[in-house]
Amino acid sequence: MARRKKNKSVQIVPLGGVGEIGKNMFLIKSNEEMLLIDAGLAFPEEEMLGVDVVIPDINYLLENKDKLKGIILTHGHEDHIGAIPYMMSQLDDIPVWGTGLTLGLLKAKLKEFPDNGNLSLNEVKPGDKLSVSSNFHLEFFRTNHSIPDTVGVVINTPAGIIVYTSDFKFDQTPVNGLITDYHILGELGRRGVLAMLSDSTNADRAGYTLSEKVVGSTIDEIFRQSKGRIIVATFASNLHRIQQVIDASVKYNRKIGITGRSIYNATNIAMELGYLHVPKGFLMDVNKLDSLPPQKVVLITTGSQGEPMSALTRIANSEHRKLEIIPGDTVVIAASPIPGNEKLVSRTVDRLFKQGAEVYYHSLSGVHVSGHGSEEELKLMLNMVKPRFLIPVHGEYRHLVQHAKIAEKLGMARKNVFVVENGNIMEFTPKTGKVTGSIPAGKVMVDGLGIGDVGNVVLRDRRVLSQDGIVVVVVGLMDKQLVSGPEIVTRGFVYVRESESLLEEAKLLVQRLILKMNQKKLSDWNIIKGEIREQVNRLFWEKTGRNPMILPVIMEINE
Amino acid sequence: MARRKKNKSVQIVPLGGVGEIGKNMFLIKSNEEMLLIDAGLAFPEEEMLGVDVVIPDINYLLENKDKLKGIILTHGHEDHIGAIPYMMSQLDDIPVWGTGLTLGLLKAKLKEFPDNGNLSLNEVKPGDKLSVSSNFHLEFFRTNHSIPDTVGVVINTPAGIIVYTSDFKFDQTPVNGLITDYHILGELGRRGVLAMLSDSTNADRAGYTLSEKVVGSTIDEIFRQSKGRIIVATFASNLHRIQQVIDASVKYNRKIGITGRSIYNATNIAMELGYLHVPKGFLMDVNKLDSLPPQKVVLITTGSQGEPMSALTRIANSEHRKLEIIPGDTVVIAASPIPGNEKLVSRTVDRLFKQGAEVYYHSLSGVHVSGHGSEEELKLMLNMVKPRFLIPVHGEYRHLVQHAKIAEKLGMARKNVFVVENGNIMEFTPKTGKVTGSIPAGKVMVDGLGIGDVGNVVLRDRRVLSQDGIVVVVVGLMDKQLVSGPEIVTRGFVYVRESESLLEEAKLLVQRLILKMNQKKLSDWNIIKGEIREQVNRLFWEKTGRNPMILPVIMEINE
Repeated sequence: MARRKKNKSVQIVPLGGVGEIGKNMFLIKSNEEMLLIDAGLAFPEEEMLGVDVVIPDINYLLENKDKLKGIILTHGHEDHIGAIPYMMSQLDDIPVWGTGLTLGLLKAKLKEFPDNGNLSLNEVKPGDKLSVSSNFHLEFFRTNHSIPDTVGVVINTPAGIIVYTSDFKFDQTPVNGLITDYHILGELGRRGVLAMLSDSTNADRAGYTLSEKVVGSTIDEIFRQSKGRIIVATFASNLHRIQQVIDASVKYNRKIGITGRSIYNATNIAMELGYLHVPKGFLMDVNKLDSLPPQKVVLITTGSQGEPMSALTRIANSEHRKLEIIPGDTVVIAASPIPGNEKLVSRTVDRLFKQGAEVYYHSLSGVHVSGHGSEEELKLMLNMVKPRFLIPVHGEYRHLVQHAKIAEKLGMARKNVFVVENGNIMEFTPKTGKVTGSIPAGKVMVDGLGIGDVGNVVLRDRRVLSQDGIVVVVVGLMDKQLVSGPEIVTRGFVYVRESESLLEEAKLLVQRLILKMNQKKLSDWNIIKGEIREQVNRLFWEKTGRNPMILPVIMEINE
Repeated sequence: MARRKKNKSVQIVPLGGVGEIGKNMFLIKSNEEMLLIDAGLAFPEEEMLGVDVVIPDINYLLENKDKLKGIILTHGHEDHIGAIPYMMSQLDDIPVWGTGLTLGLLKAKLKEFPDNGNLSLNEVKPGDKLSVSSNFHLEFFRTNHSIPDTVGVVINTPAGIIVYTSDFKFDQTPVNGLITDYHILGELGRRGVLAMLSDSTNADRAGYTLSEKVVGSTIDEIFRQSKGRIIVATFASNLHRIQQVIDASVKYNRKIGITGRSIYNATNIAMELGYLHVPKGFLMDVNKLDSLPPQKVVLITTGSQGEPMSALTRIANSEHRKLEIIPGDTVVIAASPIPGNEKLVSRTVDRLFKQGAEVYYHSLSGVHVSGHGSEEELKLMLNMVKPRFLIPVHGEYRHLVQHAKIAEKLGMARKNVFVVENGNIMEFTPKTGKVTGSIPAGKVMVDGLGIGDVGNVVLRDRRVLSQDGIVVVVVGLMDKQLVSGPEIVTRGFVYVRESESLLEEAKLLVQRLILKMNQKKLSDWNIIKGEIREQVNRLFWEKTGRNPMILPVIMEINE
């Protein structure tokens, strides 16, 4: 490569995280160097049947691996670090930077993957400066979010300063006392910022998001009133909230048990790294809590989303190996349901009530506040940082649009706000910005061990199977004569014992069909299969109003 | 049957509608006479794959058909009338009573069913009195709800007065000016009421539910500002809201098109029966709206829940035959998502924004208010009617519990509040009330033409199929020797072209297995099938991390 003068331009490409909540991944490119910010996963949409998680398409990164100088992780949530385990075997020589808790949580995740890779993980602290390469000089600033140790990133590039806010809210009374780094943000406004990528998750909520301390007050009040055991379910990574539960437990002199794999792991890592503080003697083995009177016990657990395998769900369903609800228990679901989980959570609440517990849940205010800033906070961020260009990120399309409208209210020109799609290339010079093209940036579905081997055909089949089941029609042919079958096996279609006559009818239909095919001297098996499919389908539709998948199998037997 | 003295007791049995939102059906029984209040359907839970609707189990009704004296329908929502079409062939000689709109909507539904039956439908008006039989003397009182012509029922029985509120809110400024019949309710409190079945849907919402007129103001404001076409999506049966859209259209001099089958039908019935008023010349054929300038057009449509086949969803996806979004359009989704539909609605909003529309949706306040009363309204109802016993109905378990707590706040003894399950028999005398037993009251799933023929086995199979698909393994055996196959066909498991070697491996595995079975002289086909299932399953789990359904088929070929 010929040496050349530094080009004063920078490209920004979201590989994930716009037009969706999840799989955040942003590529910054300048003078043939690339920097990646965040590498998250998304949870599957309802129609992605059987899919475990979704990650961004990283083919472009792999093709340009020699240019990729580093990966920055801004906090420890799955939608910001969750893709790393699936990328590491191909990118394990790229250095990764993140704060202490972020790396601690990432390391725990990596242990669960067999091909552990050999990532170089490097810790940074809020306020640190970092030169990743000749084109990327970084500075990290502390923000408030629903997980500690969240940072935003200032990226000094040849074209100017780019700010990535990451997820944020402005909490004036954060639980750990560590407020947003207003000093750096304020100074940025003065220095002049070229472009800002800013969190849009709550762009359609008016006003300000409440302080996490509000949840603390609610929890305190519930603790004050409760006379039996208290069970609190919340997000494993919301260590601020967990800290407040611990503080209330200490205040009301209750011992604390922690159960549920993810929350057990996260709290252990956080305690080890100093992000969670439990006075000596308050933490107890869950198995030993039974020896205490109920009013001396607090249980912190997973299951705030009604996840079928989580501790709280199993308790609610009387399926937990060791724990069951006893009348007088108080259960606090200190979370709001993530869209899509509403019914699961409601079901858990109903079952807990049936078991005799008193239940505090999201409809009753004060048990949850968001970790994302609302409209007025997005304005505050814009007014402090004063970017020339805004790129709303971390939001579904409507959130990005609302964020753009908020910017307009502050006087920004609509043409300076980029509501883009994953893969769009935005190119900026010190004064200009425009969308110049796009690269492939799709969804890669992970199902079991398979990464990307489940596509639309497989999903469409699963969809059909899930609705009306399958009917397998097997015929054994020798010299085109039916010598065995038709055998008809169904699954998920009808309750077989009650439908014998219907299946008999289908068998006769297929027999007649094969005979007719024979008379016509048809020997193209695809035509025969097509006929079987069509006629059996028609029969079942008429008799049942259902459209199962019809799968004809022809077994050829040679003499 | 021997003649005997009237027994001063009454039984109340919910056949549906407690512990759930949907399929409301309440049985009142006294002196060997039965009265049925409402006959609704429910929509399937997420895990009821492929199921269309769910109706109550009516076997008990059928067994006691000679005692059933009548069916009362309190309003025209699906969860109060939707089971009738599935019951009518067996109960078509039982008289049905309902208000004009309720019967109008029911008749339209019945037309869609082939076996139309011959129901006797009888109209009642709010304020009417009706003697159904010697034990049941009824009086209907008007309430406010999200559909006009909703009534509650006072049932005079030998044991005392039973009040069924049906769904209600107290709207002090209803759109049609017809307020709740406070006169009857107030008088009831004076006469003395034995038991009240009261709506619990919003028992966990504090305060009062806002008046429907609030939505009218929002709509007026949106109309005032909009310069292009306006498209309003709402519930087909919310004729109050539709009336307000029509009123705004008239005020701002826009012509109105109505599209989407259910809303088209509902508005036509309502106009015919006098429940919806459109001044002459304002209603236009949707196909002719294009001839008008955009600022002269309003479109009222279905799709407020993001239903895949609805008009608005098809418009949002550019799949509508005639209509597409043009920039400058304003779309108002005047509804809030029913739990479970949140993601579908969000997706529609996102796509409408992408098409260039301005979209008003549920996150922005004022486009929807509930049709159910909140905590203070439930208190008002209790304070007016003053029942000795309360039976919270129309709610999931947590709503019933919250309703019970509300009653306690008013001084009712907890033992006088019956939080029960479907099928529970509550027996009341003029002074006492208790649960005395229960009758079967399950969910009957309707899938296509089949009523009740889909059960847990079928659903479990659909579940497995939906997650990892199916692998069909066919072997042709002649005298226990493999003469054809193994043939392996998969659907919904892996993308076949990329997995040929895996499927080859499975074939070899099955071949070896058959050989080994032969050597061992095993001839029990179930054992052979079990072995195939286990070994193929293990291979696929190891290689893919997936658990498809394995379906072995053995074809026996006779020499």
